Amino acid sequence: MAGTALDKITRGKVSLFKDARGALGVVDFSKEIPFTPVRMFWIHDVPTGGQRGAHAHKACTQFIICGQGQIEIDAFDGTRREEIKLSAGEYVNLVPGIFATLTFPQEHSTVTVLCDRPYEADDYIYDAEMLARGSIVADGRK
Amino acid sequence: MAGTALDKITRGKVSLFKDARGALGVVDFSKEIPFTPVRMFWIHDVPTGGQRGAHAHKACTQFIICGQGQIEIDAFDGTRREEIKLSAGEYVNLVPGIFATLTFPQEHSTVTVLCDRPYEADDYIYDAEMLARGSIVADGRK
Repeated sequence: MAGTALDKITRGKVSLFKDARGALGVVDFSKEIPFTPVRMFWIHDVPTGGQRGAHAHKACTQFIICGQGQIEIDAFDGTRREEIKLSAGEYVNLVPGIFATLTFPQEHSTVTVLCDRPYEADDYIYDAEMLARGSIVADGRK
Repeated sequence: MAGTALDKITRGKVSLFKDARGALGVVDFSKEIPFTPVRMFWIHDVPTGGQRGAHAHKACTQFIICGQGQIEIDAFDGTRREEIKLSAGEYVNLVPGIFATLTFPQEHSTVTVLCDRPYEADDYIYDAEMLARGSIVADGRK
């Protein structure tokens, strides 16, 4: 039986080299990202405890990496909920159909997100209940 | 007459949305990056005034974006030197053959670099004088 969207996420950690000179993280797209990224965004300067996101995507897959500090993702796929904690260098590949809210629990935390699709305003789902009701088909097609 | 490598760099600024909830920067690869990125790295937690880089590439092009804070790039192509200052959201597309040293003048400054080639140990030039002597052909071929 096919699982729900949360059964399809994958997690991992990229190479992160830390020393007295600072930290350097590396993402090799063909090894770590299960798609060809066409867009990237990053979020920083979020007040401690602040939240971002609070939407799902109908078709866009998002490869979410914590750049520094920590990120907590509350993920809900209409059937079940999962709490995903990422430290610097850790990532989650979030398939479509997952309502995600990101919390920035520490000052100076950052997140970088690589996407498989360009920005499309009608790809966003702002009402988590639409996923619960199954009124959105979030399977990569639009 | 063909210019030097520094004549081929391009600069710009991506969309950066700032408000009380934090800052979000967006890079649309096909619009802003003149190649298809295959690798990304980011640098953070560099002590104030610290430096990174201090090498050139023979073939790799690097699209360098300042994520937050400020980055100063000392760039030397064997013929002339240029000082490039980037604030959050500003980028420079650094073609091969430019010896670049990045200084992080402010605490919590970050840089993200998108590359057109995988990591190749023999693509690095650690001696700026090799560029000055013209003993390296840095034209995108290896």
